[in-house]
Amino acid sequence: MAYTKSLEELIAKLVKLPGIGRRSAERIAMFLLQSSDADVKNLTSAIIRAKQNIRLCKICNILTEGEVCQICQNPARDNSTICVVEEPKDVIAFEKTAKFQGLYHVLMGSISPLDGRGPEDIKIKELIDRIKNKNIKEIIIATDSDTEGETTAIYLNKLIKPLGVKVTRIGLGVPVGSNLEYIDSTTLSLSLESRREL
Amino acid sequence: MAYTKSLEELIAKLVKLPGIGRRSAERIAMFLLQSSDADVKNLTSAIIRAKQNIRLCKICNILTEGEVCQICQNPARDNSTICVVEEPKDVIAFEKTAKFQGLYHVLMGSISPLDGRGPEDIKIKELIDRIKNKNIKEIIIATDSDTEGETTAIYLNKLIKPLGVKVTRIGLGVPVGSNLEYIDSTTLSLSLESRREL
Repeated sequence: MAYTKSLEELIAKLVKLPGIGRRSAERIAMFLLQSSDADVKNLTSAIIRAKQNIRLCKICNILTEGEVCQICQNPARDNSTICVVEEPKDVIAFEKTAKFQGLYHVLMGSISPLDGRGPEDIKIKELIDRIKNKNIKEIIIATDSDTEGETTAIYLNKLIKPLGVKVTRIGLGVPVGSNLEYIDSTTLSLSLESRREL
Repeated sequence: MAYTKSLEELIAKLVKLPGIGRRSAERIAMFLLQSSDADVKNLTSAIIRAKQNIRLCKICNILTEGEVCQICQNPARDNSTICVVEEPKDVIAFEKTAKFQGLYHVLMGSISPLDGRGPEDIKIKELIDRIKNKNIKEIIIATDSDTEGETTAIYLNKLIKPLGVKVTRIGLGVPVGSNLEYIDSTTLSLSLESRREL
């Protein structure tokens, strides 16, 4: 005997979620079967509601429930600086630091020729339009430090510098609290190149 | 800025699932937002369908989609032996071994005075009725080896033995493949008591 048909189908759907293996999916499925109808309804409604209500800010592509996100609407933010990231979740990571007071631009991906994603497939045109139409002083490129992120950073730099705007890249190097012996050599070389006088 | 309201609500629901912490919930929520409408609908429908279709077998309380489960219906199974377990998922664990050809009885819990669960709160009466009405030769008690499971096993033994039925308890001891130094002393003492001649 295996699980019943509906249960197998549910488990098959759950294992598609990120970080959920077969055993976790089984545990979650059994948990749902043992939960009250109301609790299960609450979960499925929350999924459907989030999916329906959440859209991308029409200026910066941050997740929002209105037309324009709260960061773009906030008059206290410095609208002369834009931090460019790949994904909406990268914005959350920066906001948690509470160190950045400017605006964001989410590219919705990175340039990746191997995956067939060129500059026209991500929100680069929209970024250039923002730079041309507003009084922007600095663009901070905060794409990932992998090959695609670096490619995107180099491409953006070439495109934006001629517009007379300062372009910077976030500092790359050894993460705080690291044990040096576990750091890969590319990062270590980079940390030497980017050394600062104390 | 935090997440939007619907997203926070979704994350709050997801962290209630077993084994899902805050970060996993965030990842799953972002994944769902980036999935197609059809994929999300498939997931929520699978949850709702499983919840609606799956019920407990009216004989043994195994999860089933009909009135009576496939094990109780199977004429090839030995209906003179019943393996008594606490939860429906315990049945799955035994079935995976493919070593047991009898029937099951799921108690839907264990006796736990500390949690206010007495013998009348779990399916003991139904088990006794089965034993009285059918020609049962052996009851294998496979409740957990924790305090509640042991209490339940002792209680069941006292209740069933007077009915003239053989009552056995699954072997408790050192799990196969264990390194002895990591086994707790209660298990080790038990493994000495339950030693067999080779």
